[in-house]
Amino acid sequence: MEGFKLFLAFFVSALLLGFLSVVFALVWVLHYREGLAWNGDLAEFNWHPVLIITGFVFIQGIAIIVYRLPWTWKCSKFLMKLIHAGLHTVALTLAIISLVAVFDFHNAKKIPNMYSLHSWIGLTAVILYALQLVLGLLVFLLPIASTSLRTIVMPIHVYSGLLLFGSVIATALMGITEKLFFTLKENPSYSSSPEEAIFVNVLGVLIVAYGAVILWMATRPHWKRPLEYIFQTHERIGEGLSDDDCHSPDLEFNSDAAARKRSPKSDEAGQRSAM
Amino acid sequence: MEGFKLFLAFFVSALLLGFLSVVFALVWVLHYREGLAWNGDLAEFNWHPVLIITGFVFIQGIAIIVYRLPWTWKCSKFLMKLIHAGLHTVALTLAIISLVAVFDFHNAKKIPNMYSLHSWIGLTAVILYALQLVLGLLVFLLPIASTSLRTIVMPIHVYSGLLLFGSVIATALMGITEKLFFTLKENPSYSSSPEEAIFVNVLGVLIVAYGAVILWMATRPHWKRPLEYIFQTHERIGEGLSDDDCHSPDLEFNSDAAARKRSPKSDEAGQRSAM
Repeated sequence: MEGFKLFLAFFVSALLLGFLSVVFALVWVLHYREGLAWNGDLAEFNWHPVLIITGFVFIQGIAIIVYRLPWTWKCSKFLMKLIHAGLHTVALTLAIISLVAVFDFHNAKKIPNMYSLHSWIGLTAVILYALQLVLGLLVFLLPIASTSLRTIVMPIHVYSGLLLFGSVIATALMGITEKLFFTLKENPSYSSSPEEAIFVNVLGVLIVAYGAVILWMATRPHWKRPLEYIFQTHERIGEGLSDDDCHSPDLEFNSDAAARKRSPKSDEAGQRSAM
Repeated sequence: MEGFKLFLAFFVSALLLGFLSVVFALVWVLHYREGLAWNGDLAEFNWHPVLIITGFVFIQGIAIIVYRLPWTWKCSKFLMKLIHAGLHTVALTLAIISLVAVFDFHNAKKIPNMYSLHSWIGLTAVILYALQLVLGLLVFLLPIASTSLRTIVMPIHVYSGLLLFGSVIATALMGITEKLFFTLKENPSYSSSPEEAIFVNVLGVLIVAYGAVILWMATRPHWKRPLEYIFQTHERIGEGLSDDDCHSPDLEFNSDAAARKRSPKSDEAGQRSAM
């Protein structure tokens, strides 16, 4: 792998930032707030930030870069797809449980649901994430989609995945903002910068830094899973297939030469190499 | 250009979404809020969302995709760089004026500055954006940087630009959230979903949609400014230079063959093609 040490530094940083974010979320609700419980009260609401940051931020980020880990390159692509989809499923499950906690708390306290921008964008992200997961399973994991369909869908899948990840982080920042203004109204107020406010602001910064590291790792083409099959010729440099394009996801199921030798001029191949 | 009609559809959508966002911001402050003035009162604060959405969201987005517009491909790359840098400078200027409005309002009303997560991430984004602009001028616009330095910096420049754009949108969403909770406390409260709340939530959704369209356009390799010089050979497919790499920004100043024929194996070239 080119730049392996640098990759390792980024990967360790991602793990540290993600792990720290989860620890900060736990300290926030356990030390500064009402703890965790499933009782229709604030302690039930508190599952929301903990599960979102654990699942929808940390685990989603790891799911995104799982193909990049060089020590997994000996594993079959099919196994890696299972791990990729599995981690995303865990992330989605935790996100759904965290939504149930909020709705349950709101209903118990007769607080309206779905009125804030945070809730609008957050619920949309969860729905689109579930759709992305189902479409990913149908197109890339199950042996039913044609090579050409996979080639068309791949750039959209990659773009949507990264966009959803960014949107989830933006939504988490809105959620942190909401919660701090709700809870730190007076004595102390948020604007007086009490210890809790500083602590949770730092949590927000950690989440942004985690997102930045994951997005850097995910968009470095030379850190992709390497080629298994190298074209001997192609017609136009600058639209050449990237490593992952050549090692197409369909090859696990369809190893015919036509699939491997498909035109590197296609838009889709070029698009795939963008991520 | 491949897929010109689709490109046009995306570009028109971006313009519409960006323009609508600015209109929504204006309607928000002029119709629902205190209007615009420079008087140390809320009407001065209101310049903040208007200038951020106009400059730091809309104009920044257009600055990012300005190289993609096919009707500019006849222009010299140097002219396009001037336009790119010029638009970013306008965006930064409006962002700075919008910050002055907030600090001025806070100071007049004796409200503390820089306590919220919104302010932490927002000010960091403005500072990094200014740094990005200065570094961009020094490395890519002025004829002082070496080819190898430009090759190293380009992927970082592109990644930082897109990350900052995303961070600015996330910060805008936090700002909208803050402002709605501040202003819609009682009669009506935000949670009772009055007309203003729905209207401004829609503004948030428009901004996210605008960001999504810009990021799609910016990351499609086949929509890049085309090659001026095509390498006849390169050693490893999957790390081939993209269109913009071959039409390196340094070529405007340094047209020596060495620069054009630099190794397509370099990490940096591969990284550049990721955006």
